[in-house]
Order: sequence, then C-alpha cells, then structure tokens
Amino acid sequence: MGRVRVGINGYGTIGKRVAWAVMKQPDMELVGVVKTRPSWEALSATARGIRLYVPEGKEELFENAGIKVAGTLQDLLQSIDVVVDATPAGVGATYAGRYREAGIKAVFQGGEKESVAGVSFNALYTYETALGKASVRVVSCNTTGILRVLYAFRRAGNVRSVRVTIVRRGADLKEVKKGPIEGLLLKPAKPPSHHADDVRSVAGHDLDIITYSIVAPTTLAHMHVMFVKFNGSVSREDVIRALEETPRIVLLRADLASSTAEVRELARDLGRCGDIYEVIVWPESLWVRGDEAGIAYMVHQEAIVVPENIDAIRAVTGIVSNGTQSIRLTDKALSIGRWLP
Amino acid sequence: MGRVRVGINGYGTIGKRVAWAVMKQPDMELVGVVKTRPSWEALSATARGIRLYVPEGKEELFENAGIKVAGTLQDLLQSIDVVVDATPAGVGATYAGRYREAGIKAVFQGGEKESVAGVSFNALYTYETALGKASVRVVSCNTTGILRVLYAFRRAGNVRSVRVTIVRRGADLKEVKKGPIEGLLLKPAKPPSHHADDVRSVAGHDLDIITYSIVAPTTLAHMHVMFVKFNGSVSREDVIRALEETPRIVLLRADLASSTAEVRELARDLGRCGDIYEVIVWPESLWVRGDEAGIAYMVHQEAIVVPENIDAIRAVTGIVSNGTQSIRLTDKALSIGRWLP
Repeated sequence: MGRVRVGINGYGTIGKRVAWAVMKQPDMELVGVVKTRPSWEALSATARGIRLYVPEGKEELFENAGIKVAGTLQDLLQSIDVVVDATPAGVGATYAGRYREAGIKAVFQGGEKESVAGVSFNALYTYETALGKASVRVVSCNTTGILRVLYAFRRAGNVRSVRVTIVRRGADLKEVKKGPIEGLLLKPAKPPSHHADDVRSVAGHDLDIITYSIVAPTTLAHMHVMFVKFNGSVSREDVIRALEETPRIVLLRADLASSTAEVRELARDLGRCGDIYEVIVWPESLWVRGDEAGIAYMVHQEAIVVPENIDAIRAVTGIVSNGTQSIRLTDKALSIGRWLP
Repeated sequence: MGRVRVGINGYGTIGKRVAWAVMKQPDMELVGVVKTRPSWEALSATARGIRLYVPEGKEELFENAGIKVAGTLQDLLQSIDVVVDATPAGVGATYAGRYREAGIKAVFQGGEKESVAGVSFNALYTYETALGKASVRVVSCNTTGILRVLYAFRRAGNVRSVRVTIVRRGADLKEVKKGPIEGLLLKPAKPPSHHADDVRSVAGHDLDIITYSIVAPTTLAHMHVMFVKFNGSVSREDVIRALEETPRIVLLRADLASSTAEVRELARDLGRCGDIYEVIVWPESLWVRGDEAGIAYMVHQEAIVVPENIDAIRAVTGIVSNGTQSIRLTDKALSIGRWLP
C-alpha cells in the first residue's frame, strides 16, 4: 500500500494541527483541507502551501478575497482515502452521509455523538477495535487527558473508582467572542459532566467515574485533579513508574514549572509553537495512601488530540495493524515523548 | 456588661469589613481602626467617620496626606476590650505581645499559626472552646467554606473522608500587583494544601481530609468541588435538609446563576455591595450514591470570615456564652440567612 491520502474537513483549532501533523508522517499524504469561509485561517493554509477546497458554489467568494482555491469539497472527497472531520461539534454528523457515499473512511472529533462514528477512539485503548472500521470519533481533549492518566493508574493497580475535578479553559486564544473574562462557572451544574460518559465509551462502560467541571477565565490549558480508589493498595513507586511508561504522558517537576502558563511558554522555548501533545503530570502532586491516590495534571486543549487523530487515520485505513506501532510512528514524527530531563 | 469596645488593627480587605460589621452589632462599639500607611483605604475609613489610629511617630505622615488621625496604636489598645488583628499573614504574631501587655483579648486571622492564638475558631465548631480565652484565630476563607459544608454533611451522616479541589481566586480586586492574569497554577504542587490542616484544627485532628488547590485568574470568589465518603449510606434529601438547616449556607438554584460572576452581581443587586457572607451551594451539583456524595459551592474570599470574626469577639470577651445565640445575633445584624427564595 502506498501513502494514505488524507483530507481534512475544517481548518480550525484541531483541523489545522492535524493537517500539519499529517504532513510530517512518512506514510501519509495531505491532499488538502476544506474551509467554508475566507478567514485568516484560510489564508494561513494557502500560505503554508496547503491546497484549499471549498463547498460547491463558494469558489468566487474565496477568489475575491484573494485566496487561491484548489477545488470543491466533492473534488477532495474523490481524491482521498480518509477524511478527518474537524468541523464544529455536531456539524460532523451532517457530513457523515457524504463521506459514506464517497466510499472513504472518516475520523470524527469528540463533539460528535458516539452513534455518528460507531467507535470511540483513544490509541491506548481502542486502536484494535477501530481497525478497518468505516469511522471512529477521537474523544475530546479533557477525556483524552483523563484516559491517559487512568491508563497509568490501571497499570499500577486495580482501579475501583475515579473522581475528577476539571478546571477548563474558558476559550481558545482565537475565540474572541467567548468568555468568561472574569469569574468561575460551574458547567454543567449537575454532575457528571459529559467527560464521565466519554471516558466510559473508551475505557469500559462499567468504570465508576464521576466528573465535575468548572470553567475558568484562561486560554492556555485545562487542569485536572483526579482522585482514584483501588481494590487493594498501591505504592507511590508503582504509580510513578506506570506514568513514566505510559505514552504521551510527560512528568514535569513542579519546582521547575507548576502553572499552565510556564509550561506553555516552556513548549514555545523548545520550538513547539506552544503545542503540547502530552499530558503534563506533576509528580509532586501525586498523593498515595493505601488504596487511594490523588494527582494533578495539565491538558493542552488545542493539541492533545492531534496524535490520536493520526493514529485513528492508521486504524481506520488499516495501514498499521497494531496500536503500539502506530503510537511509535506518530510520536517519532511529532517528536512526542520525554522532551524534558 | 456594657457594649464591648472593639479596635481593629488593619483596615484592608478583612479589617474594613469586620469594622463595618462591628458598627452594626447592638452589643459592640467600634472605637477605631489602625492603618500603617496613608492609603485610599485610610481615607475611606475617615470618610465613613471611623476613628483612625496610627503607629507611634507616623502621625505627621498621615496629617500631611490630609488624613485626620485620632491617636496612636497604643492609645487605641488602652481604650478597648478586644482587638481584631487583620494585619497581613504572619504580621499578627509580631503584635501578639503588645496585645497581651495591654491586657486585651485578641482575634487573629487564618494567616497566623494556630500556636499564635491557641484556639482555631469557627462559630459552628469551637465557640464554646473559645469562650473567655485570651485569643483565637479565625481560620481563613476557604477553610471556613469547607467547615460549613462539612458541618452539613456531618449532620446528614457519619463522614469518613473528605476530598476537596479548591479553585482559588488569583487576587482580590484591589491587589493590583498580584496575578495570574492568565493561566492556572497548582499551588501548592504537593498536596494537601494548608486548608486540610486548618480544617482539622477546627473540626478534629482525626478527620481524613485531603485538599488540592489550583489558582485561577479571577478576583470574584473561590469555587470548590468536595467529595465525601460516609460510613453507611446517606440520602439526597438528608443532605439537602442538613444544608438548609446549617447557618451561613445559602442554596441557590444553578439554573438561576451558576457562576461566581452572576452570584456576586446578584449580591450587588440586593444591596450588599457584592459582599457574600454565606457559602453559596448549588443543589443541582449535589451527587449522592450509597455512601458517597459530591458537591460544588462558592466562597467569597473577602466576606465569608466577617461573621466569624464577630462571633469570635463575643466568644473571647464572653459577652454571649452560647455559639448558636451569637450566630443568631450576628446574622440578624448583618442580614445573613436565606436571602434567596
């Protein structure tokens, strides 16, 4: 099999990052991306040499704005093996029929219901389930963060219950109309937040998990506090080792940086444009006593699902049959791993 | 016994609010407040007709700034029965000797160590312990919030463990040099935060409590998520009833207001200048299953300890021998209670 031909529907926060990541994979070719409005992001795509496809009838709108168009959405769908749907939450469902008709595989995002895609995807849990399926959905950023840390805890012991408090960023940097600018918002007011169901859709429907979610006035990242109860006791060393051995988790000493702001700037300093694909876990925050543990970590909402999308492409197209191998390929291409001493 | 003569050392965030609250109590007289620098807050004190006392030798500094001075700190200490120390954290300890020498009672704040004051104070728990003591310390805002909610949970069942995630406001409105403006900060990185020890200092040293604390860029209020484990199961109805019956807790429907911003503005609309003495608990956030519960609530850091300071004054001076009676007096004078339908 040659390189997988990939198209991205949507070039927003997630879509553009997945596009850039696809361009770095040895076994993938980015055919183009779709944008519905001639925005600064459309301009940024063409400026990077990415072919831009637009909905039928919108060609003139883009050309008038001085943005070069390579073809229509239909043109793109006919020249690819797989589409990554990075349209706004709920919009992906309205495209599902077109993807099916075009006979291509589809990778949706966590904003779509599980019923739209069939399989909820996280590379550590459901790669093999997703193999060759017509479509999957990559669960959202907070859910992905919880899943990775939970994976480590499950390596360390027999997890009985999980209680998470999620402090969510209010908006991404570019979302200039969203808030809050000030205040903390309990959302939803009635627990659990959707993350509990989403985690179960990947990690198993019998998992005992409750999540609360508080929205804070920040754009940089989410922060979680997770309490875990085990059947039987665990040791601090086992948990630390499991965290170290879990892909896409980075342990960062809190005495070096203990805020989302410092960690994002650290990632800028290290040439990542601030994008952090890994869950950042502070080892000092790990509290272990008997059959119980607590931990705090950070999730960069714009970037964390990007490697999961890349793995999802490999899973649905079947070009790599093994999750561990796909993770290794992705992480090498994106320099993911233990980038801190 | 006539009215208790009260002086306040410090007229900052807490000191000024305690001063205003003292002025509303039928059994107390505010003799004056102490300020060490001629700031806008010193001006605001005199503008409200409050006598301003200053450290020895600083009289001219204030008069030159056009601020009228009533006397020195020593003058104040000689004309009062009790001082409320509302100086910055750790500074109160340096004054403790002078209070003792003046032969007056002292009420310290939560920023002082328990050893400075002897008794950690919350009106629901330690009023009787504090009766007639030379000094107490009123535990800080987040601790006070936890204690009130815990009080309700203990009425509803036999509490086994408490796990709290505190999302702290970054700074008060007037703290123009403090941050963060952006980002979330895990502080301390190593759990538990000081709140766990402080809660134990009031609620009993054998309480199993762990607290994590995340600082957020907001000035309006803290928000907590608390998970409680009971010995034996509890019912949702019992917890709601206990919350309703606990003084200084207000249940507010989240469908009316679920953010710190809306609740603070609601308090402004109701003529309180935004000060909220009560813990605001959202009933929708209460999750109960078997022997476990979770809840989210809000703590207004500037105001919540004010009624506790008033009760502490009554306890150390012994003018009211019963905590419930003092709470009733304070709450009536400050219109505390179920101010929402």
